[in-house]
Amino acid sequence: MTTPDPTRLSINQETIKQWSLEELATGCTAAGISHVGLWRAPVQEYGVERAAKLMRASGLAVTSLCRGGFLTATDPEQRAAALDDNRRAIDEAAVLGTDTLVLVSGGLPDGERDLTAARERIADALAVLAPYAASCGIRLAIEPLHPMFASDRCVVSTLGQALDLAERFPADQVGVVVDTYHIWWDDQAPVQIARAGASGRLHSFQVADWITPLPAGVLLGRGRLGDGSIDMRAFRELVDAAGFVGAIEVEIFNEELWGRPGAEVLGEVVARFTEHVL
Amino acid sequence: MTTPDPTRLSINQETIKQWSLEELATGCTAAGISHVGLWRAPVQEYGVERAAKLMRASGLAVTSLCRGGFLTATDPEQRAAALDDNRRAIDEAAVLGTDTLVLVSGGLPDGERDLTAARERIADALAVLAPYAASCGIRLAIEPLHPMFASDRCVVSTLGQALDLAERFPADQVGVVVDTYHIWWDDQAPVQIARAGASGRLHSFQVADWITPLPAGVLLGRGRLGDGSIDMRAFRELVDAAGFVGAIEVEIFNEELWGRPGAEVLGEVVARFTEHVL
Repeated sequence: MTTPDPTRLSINQETIKQWSLEELATGCTAAGISHVGLWRAPVQEYGVERAAKLMRASGLAVTSLCRGGFLTATDPEQRAAALDDNRRAIDEAAVLGTDTLVLVSGGLPDGERDLTAARERIADALAVLAPYAASCGIRLAIEPLHPMFASDRCVVSTLGQALDLAERFPADQVGVVVDTYHIWWDDQAPVQIARAGASGRLHSFQVADWITPLPAGVLLGRGRLGDGSIDMRAFRELVDAAGFVGAIEVEIFNEELWGRPGAEVLGEVVARFTEHVL
Repeated sequence: MTTPDPTRLSINQETIKQWSLEELATGCTAAGISHVGLWRAPVQEYGVERAAKLMRASGLAVTSLCRGGFLTATDPEQRAAALDDNRRAIDEAAVLGTDTLVLVSGGLPDGERDLTAARERIADALAVLAPYAASCGIRLAIEPLHPMFASDRCVVSTLGQALDLAERFPADQVGVVVDTYHIWWDDQAPVQIARAGASGRLHSFQVADWITPLPAGVLLGRGRLGDGSIDMRAFRELVDAAGFVGAIEVEIFNEELWGRPGAEVLGEVVARFTEHVL
């Protein structure tokens, strides 16, 4: 058994969502963890300014805020509302002191079947949002989601597609998220990770394992590190070789984890992260 | 409402699996359908020779047999058993008078995480099987399965990967299946369909729609033509432009369809095929 090493670990708060923000801050500090990834809804509930103070007081750096996006609506009112909401997300990210807002770009609107047009609407929205984000010191990070989410959550399904979109904008404005769960199956992933690194667009690296059978709805089917099919260390090495030096977010949506004491889950995450990722 | 046109339609028997082979033969003939896609288990149960006679007597051509494959085992005994089973599948296909055996290539063996090595084992197996298949007048058709099946059913997740494998062999020995359900999300699909056509490797075209939420296990989540997110006509046009002139298989695994009278399902399939595919 290797000695647990939390120095490069960032805990995405959804992994231990049974914890309040204060419990997360206390728990992470006690475990020697100095990075967290946050989500908008629990942060808003607690108060954005208050959450920022709590993180600072606890010595926790925020590696990313999840999530902006959902930029594929065709309806003008929905589209305007989405842009407004993303501007608020950018403001919140700035208050929290992170430099990265993760984008889940959005699926196909009801009755639509044109993926290319939907991807183009994302680019149109980025043209509006990216300069605003940059003026707030925030980078937008497009997260390709597994193709099983293409219709209802994200029409950006591969790292290649995400980079095709990102490269229309300056690298310090729009980059990508590499999440092992979403891209592990793709034989183009290694070359695309290198491409992301070479252009300075590898803004976030997240890890979760792939397990089957998938549950109904498939959203909560992520596996604990080491339980599944993904060679996590190989991905970490690819990302390192591409020049990524940030903290690595563990982001697992799994109801079994949410049913256990948070401190126990955190300890297990640190041990498995050390064993399977580092 | 357009007039239902079954001339280019092939009914994959799993779409109406509540029907026996004899009911399928009678039902298809009554509906003016002259092509079917068959599965090994029900054909074996009925008797392969007997099934072949039934199809001939009913004037039904068999567009493909599902399925060979599962060629990714590392254990030598399992590997030998898989090769034997695939030789039997080739023999059965020849008896049925089809020229195409569909391959579901296999997932990762328990505890394995190396997708590249698993794909290489498929190539090794094809080197053994393809010449035998050719000597029986059978083409092996690699079916890329949706990436959500990469760990447990098929490490070949894109049409590009399938063609990379197929192109190591003569085009009349190894080709690919284009199934809208599996590749609709992929922005590389159009160029890969053209590539498959240009090299004479587009051996089978299957259609089913993509609907959400996915059920637990995700296997039986296919949608009826027109119910989902896929622009089926666009894919049919791409496949036509690539030179495919065969019958188009409708292959839908959906428990709701299996609970209804077969003739009703068949009528609906013909109508929807005419409306959404032709």
